[in-house]
Amino acid sequence: MSVKAYGAYAGDKPLEPMEITRRAPGPHDVQIEIAFCGICHSDLHQVRAEWAGTRFPCVPGHEIVGWVSAVGAHVTGFQPGDLVGVGCIVDSCKHCEDCASGLENYCDGMVGTYNFPTPDAPGWTLGGYSQQIVVHERYVLRVRHAEEQLAAVAPLLCAGITTWSPLRHWNAGPGKKVGVVGIGGLGHMGIKLAHAMGAHVVAFTTSESKREAAMALGADEVVVSRNAGEMTAHAKSFDLIVNTVAAPHDLDAFLVLLKRDGAMVLVGAPATPHPSPGVFNLITKRRTLAGSMIGGIPETQKMLDFCAEHGIVADIELVRANEINTAYERMLKSDVKYRFVIDNATLAA
Amino acid sequence: MSVKAYGAYAGDKPLEPMEITRRAPGPHDVQIEIAFCGICHSDLHQVRAEWAGTRFPCVPGHEIVGWVSAVGAHVTGFQPGDLVGVGCIVDSCKHCEDCASGLENYCDGMVGTYNFPTPDAPGWTLGGYSQQIVVHERYVLRVRHAEEQLAAVAPLLCAGITTWSPLRHWNAGPGKKVGVVGIGGLGHMGIKLAHAMGAHVVAFTTSESKREAAMALGADEVVVSRNAGEMTAHAKSFDLIVNTVAAPHDLDAFLVLLKRDGAMVLVGAPATPHPSPGVFNLITKRRTLAGSMIGGIPETQKMLDFCAEHGIVADIELVRANEINTAYERMLKSDVKYRFVIDNATLAA
Repeated sequence: MSVKAYGAYAGDKPLEPMEITRRAPGPHDVQIEIAFCGICHSDLHQVRAEWAGTRFPCVPGHEIVGWVSAVGAHVTGFQPGDLVGVGCIVDSCKHCEDCASGLENYCDGMVGTYNFPTPDAPGWTLGGYSQQIVVHERYVLRVRHAEEQLAAVAPLLCAGITTWSPLRHWNAGPGKKVGVVGIGGLGHMGIKLAHAMGAHVVAFTTSESKREAAMALGADEVVVSRNAGEMTAHAKSFDLIVNTVAAPHDLDAFLVLLKRDGAMVLVGAPATPHPSPGVFNLITKRRTLAGSMIGGIPETQKMLDFCAEHGIVADIELVRANEINTAYERMLKSDVKYRFVIDNATLAA
Repeated sequence: MSVKAYGAYAGDKPLEPMEITRRAPGPHDVQIEIAFCGICHSDLHQVRAEWAGTRFPCVPGHEIVGWVSAVGAHVTGFQPGDLVGVGCIVDSCKHCEDCASGLENYCDGMVGTYNFPTPDAPGWTLGGYSQQIVVHERYVLRVRHAEEQLAAVAPLLCAGITTWSPLRHWNAGPGKKVGVVGIGGLGHMGIKLAHAMGAHVVAFTTSESKREAAMALGADEVVVSRNAGEMTAHAKSFDLIVNTVAAPHDLDAFLVLLKRDGAMVLVGAPATPHPSPGVFNLITKRRTLAGSMIGGIPETQKMLDFCAEHGIVADIELVRANEINTAYERMLKSDVKYRFVIDNATLAA
C-alpha cells in the first residue's frame, strides 16, 4: 500500500512530500489511519543526522494517534474505527525479561517507530508523518479520550510517557516534593502529570517569563534556576527531580536540592556530556542520579487511561504538513507552547 | 584526663606522640580504653590537609575497638570491661528525620570522630590514635567477636560499614550479581560481606596480580578491568556494583555492566572529578549512579553482629604507634593486605 508522507532525503535537506509503502497487515497487525502526529525534538535530531545512523529517506514521527482502518485475522483487541495511539515502539523481541515485564522500551531488540531495521521496505521503519501505519497489536494503545481531544493526545505517546514512567517508578504522589526541570514538550507534561498524581510540584526554568505559564500548568512553585537564592531555599528538600533538559548543564545545582535518598532522573540525553557531577553530593545524602527512557507498553496504556480519566492532554499548536520545516525552526527557538502536532489530513493536499 | 596520642601539628609534618585531654564522662557517656585503631585512607587525607578544613593538632582514627573503662550515671547498656567499638560518628543532632531513622551518618549535625567541632578541648574532635576516648552511648557499638579477634574487628567500623550499608540498601543477597570495584581496605570487606550475604560476587581490579587474592577473599569471579574482553563478557549483567575506588576513573566502563534497573554506588570520593559519565548509559537501561557514606549506628551494630556470627573480620597488618608514618607511605603504594591497624598499647611506650 502506497501512502503519502513527509520526510527528508538527506540530513541537510528540508522535509518534503514523499510516497512510502506500508506492508499489508499480518495476522497480528493493526492498520491505522493517522489523524495527528506530534513533533518531538528527537525527530529533528534524527532527520538532520545530528545523531549517528540516520537512514534516508527518513520519515520521523512517534507520537501517533488515529483510527484503526483494518486488522489482521488474529487481532481480537481492536476493530476498525477504534481510536488508537502508537508511540516510540513498534516491535521488540517479545520474550526477554524486559518484554515479559512490560518494559519493551528496555528490550535490546526494541524497534523504534522510525529509523530502526525492519524487513519492510525500505529496510528501516518510517514514522508517523504519514497517512497510515501498520503495527503489531502489542504496540497499539487504546485512546479513551474524546475524539475532539485527539490532536492534543498525540504528545502523550512520547512526552507523556517519558515523564510518566520515572514519576511512577520513583513514586511521585501525595506527600512527595517533585521537581521538573525544563518547561518544554516533556517538562510541561511532567508538571501536569506530577500535579495530577498529587505531588507538590516545583517547576524549574531558566526563564523568568515562564513563571506564570508553569503555574498555569499545575506547578505549586516555580524556581528560576539562575537565581541562586531561590535555588538555595529548596536545598535538601526534593524526593524526586525529573530533568528534561537535554542541553549540557550543571547537574550539581539540582543534586544538592535532593533530600537524603532523593533521586534526579535524566530523561534527556545531551549531544555533549554534562559537566561531571560531584561525587560528594551523591555520597553525603545517598542521592541517586538515574536515567529513564520513554516507557513500556502496559504503563503507556495506564498513562493514557489516567490522562483520559483526569482530562489531561498536551498543550499544542496544530500545524499543516507543509509547515513542518517552519515548526522545526521555531522549536529550536523554544517558540512553541508546548508541542507542535501535525494535522495528518493535510498530507493529502 | 590527659592521655597519650599520636597526631600531627601541621599538614606537612609527620605524626608524632602528643598528650591530649578527654572530658570526664557525662551521664550518657562511655569511656573506652582503646585497644586497636584501624588506619583509614581518610586519616591520611585529613591529617595531611589534602582535604579542606583540617584543624591542628589533628589526631586521626575512626576504626576504634577497646574495652569500656567507665560509664556515666545514666548509661544502662554498657558496663566496664565490655568489648566495644566506635566508628566514624561520635555525635549527631538526635532529633532530625535521619537520626530518627537510625541514619545518623546523613544527619546535618553529624559529628565525626576527628576534626569536627565539639565543646571539648581543643574545640574539635580527636580520634582513635589515642589511649582513651569518651563517647555518648548512642554511638558506641557492642563487639561480640572473640577478644583475640579484636584488632581485626577494628576496620569493620569504617571499611566494613561503608560497604555493608550500600550492599544492604541495594539488596545484595542470593540470586543477585554484585560487583566490587577495587580490592583495598574497603573493597576486601565488600567482597567478604557480599559473599557472606549470598550474592554472586565479581571483584574488579586493575591488577592481574590480585586475582588469586580476590578469590581467596570470597569472590566468585575476578575481572581485570583493563582487559576489554573480560569486561564485555559481563555487559548488562550486574544488579549492583559497589565502587570503592576514589581515584578518578571511567565510570562508563562499569555502568554498561549493569542490567536494567541496576545501580552503581560510589563510596569513594575523588579529589578531582571522574570523567563525566555518559547519560545514554543511564537512560537506556534505567540505571542508577548513586553514592553512599559510611552507615548509621543501628546498621553498624547489625553489621558487627552479622560479622561475629559469620566469623568475618578484616585482613590486617598490626603496627606500633611509631610505625604509623611508615604505614602511611606503604598505604599510598597499596602495599598492605588490606588494612593497617595500630596496637594502641604501644602508645604508652
